[in-house]
Amino acid sequence: MVAAPRLAARLGLKSLLLKDETRNPTRCLKDRATAIAVTLATANGYRDMYCASAGNAAISLAGFCANHGLGCHVFVPSEASQTRLNWLRRYGADIHVSTGNYDQAYDEAERAGAENGWYSRNCAFNPFLVEGKKTVAFEMGEQLGWQAPDLIVAPVGDGCTLGAIGKGFRELEAVGLTDEIPQLIGIQSEAIQPLVRRHRGDDSGGDNGNAQAASIAVRRPRNTLRLLSEIRLSNGLMLGVSDEHISSAQRTLAEEAGVVAEFTSAAALAGLIQLAEHESLENKSAVLVITGGRLDSDF
Amino acid sequence: MVAAPRLAARLGLKSLLLKDETRNPTRCLKDRATAIAVTLATANGYRDMYCASAGNAAISLAGFCANHGLGCHVFVPSEASQTRLNWLRRYGADIHVSTGNYDQAYDEAERAGAENGWYSRNCAFNPFLVEGKKTVAFEMGEQLGWQAPDLIVAPVGDGCTLGAIGKGFRELEAVGLTDEIPQLIGIQSEAIQPLVRRHRGDDSGGDNGNAQAASIAVRRPRNTLRLLSEIRLSNGLMLGVSDEHISSAQRTLAEEAGVVAEFTSAAALAGLIQLAEHESLENKSAVLVITGGRLDSDF
Repeated sequence: MVAAPRLAARLGLKSLLLKDETRNPTRCLKDRATAIAVTLATANGYRDMYCASAGNAAISLAGFCANHGLGCHVFVPSEASQTRLNWLRRYGADIHVSTGNYDQAYDEAERAGAENGWYSRNCAFNPFLVEGKKTVAFEMGEQLGWQAPDLIVAPVGDGCTLGAIGKGFRELEAVGLTDEIPQLIGIQSEAIQPLVRRHRGDDSGGDNGNAQAASIAVRRPRNTLRLLSEIRLSNGLMLGVSDEHISSAQRTLAEEAGVVAEFTSAAALAGLIQLAEHESLENKSAVLVITGGRLDSDF
Repeated sequence: MVAAPRLAARLGLKSLLLKDETRNPTRCLKDRATAIAVTLATANGYRDMYCASAGNAAISLAGFCANHGLGCHVFVPSEASQTRLNWLRRYGADIHVSTGNYDQAYDEAERAGAENGWYSRNCAFNPFLVEGKKTVAFEMGEQLGWQAPDLIVAPVGDGCTLGAIGKGFRELEAVGLTDEIPQLIGIQSEAIQPLVRRHRGDDSGGDNGNAQAASIAVRRPRNTLRLLSEIRLSNGLMLGVSDEHISSAQRTLAEEAGVVAEFTSAAALAGLIQLAEHESLENKSAVLVITGGRLDSDF
């Protein structure tokens, strides 16, 4: 956790902390789920693993498989950035670039995984992986002396990460380590925000835009029920933000907090800034989950 | 610490661990010294700091200064990579690109620091900073259950980092937490290896080559006495390796251990491979210090 006193003052918060997940083994929160997946695959005698991913989950799996000597099959959308493909190549992954978007790559991955009997590192498919992602909540609780923050803000694609954070904090409360659960604030791109609409009861669809925030450009989110349930249980919110505001938030995170976040991850700050424009955050403590630090372009 | 069982088997070691310093706040071991420098500068009322650097120390200082709202003045050599300049710009640092090499930038930094009354984050100048760098030794000791490894291998430029690791392990032994100190193996580039020559008593000079390992391309090392003293006390070695072998080691680290190291940091593995070709490492435990993870070019 990195204290961000300058940003806290700007937003009128009592305190603001950044949970800096760019410091995981492959620079991303995804490693928490991968650790569980690789452990289970190895324990059950699998020699090959697979996942679909806009980049980070695939890179995470490729890195862990390289360390363990496992075969790694990754399915990425046609628009996967050169930066992400380079990371996959460095780790020696078997790379399948789809002709379509993330949603198509996801279907291709599940088909290939079932046909070949590979072990799945798709968080919305493999029910064990949430147990890895929820550890970020345990760490936040521990690092805050078992005081839950008032707000936790994170970018949302399929919904697995913020859903897992909700599960983690509910477990901390259930065992009596914390007294409260934080309000969960999920951030999507304005251009592709199915979960923002679903949360307000709008099933009309219409996510045909393009978002620069590639890691959350998910048109058919696969963990919708868990995510919406956790948002409701925490009295939380879903917000959409523009690419322009994310870009500005990315610069602010570096210049005023010293944290270089990837574009998608900066959406958390853009969302918190938007929230602060509509309601007073005085006397509130907030944690931004900076999910990853891989840069697809300079800023 | 990341276990690297595949590399251990290849080199005939009992165990091999990677101390993965790419996971510090700005992706580099330098943050350990910066933390001390920023703390002391703030405690003593300074509003501006400076350092000379091939890139990593400057980026580290810029990131910490951004977080704390301090002025940051960095002096880098003419050959500083675009990647490193981009990181400095993102953090909003005041960047001085020298017309010369690291050694010239170092002199320019010390002159400007003295003239302007800025606080120094030059490790070979500010005697407190070793107290930050030595914490990497404390962590290794703790993570190994207070058993010192047989060998610790790290790249060497000015000599501050490996010298600090030696100091750290001697302190662990002095307070009775460990029984032994590890043998320190320092790695330089064959093209610029003043400390390899000084260690064998050769003062003839002759470091006029160019090394791709920019972070250790130091022709006039400023922590020579401490480094050579720690090498001797640990019954250690200094080795020079070729750019070609570093490049190969960088690929091997990614493909067989899942760790993406920057070019300079891969010199540690290149050195260990060279050592394993000349003597048996059977029954030995080794730790490679992976000092940083910023990539100046793809590999």
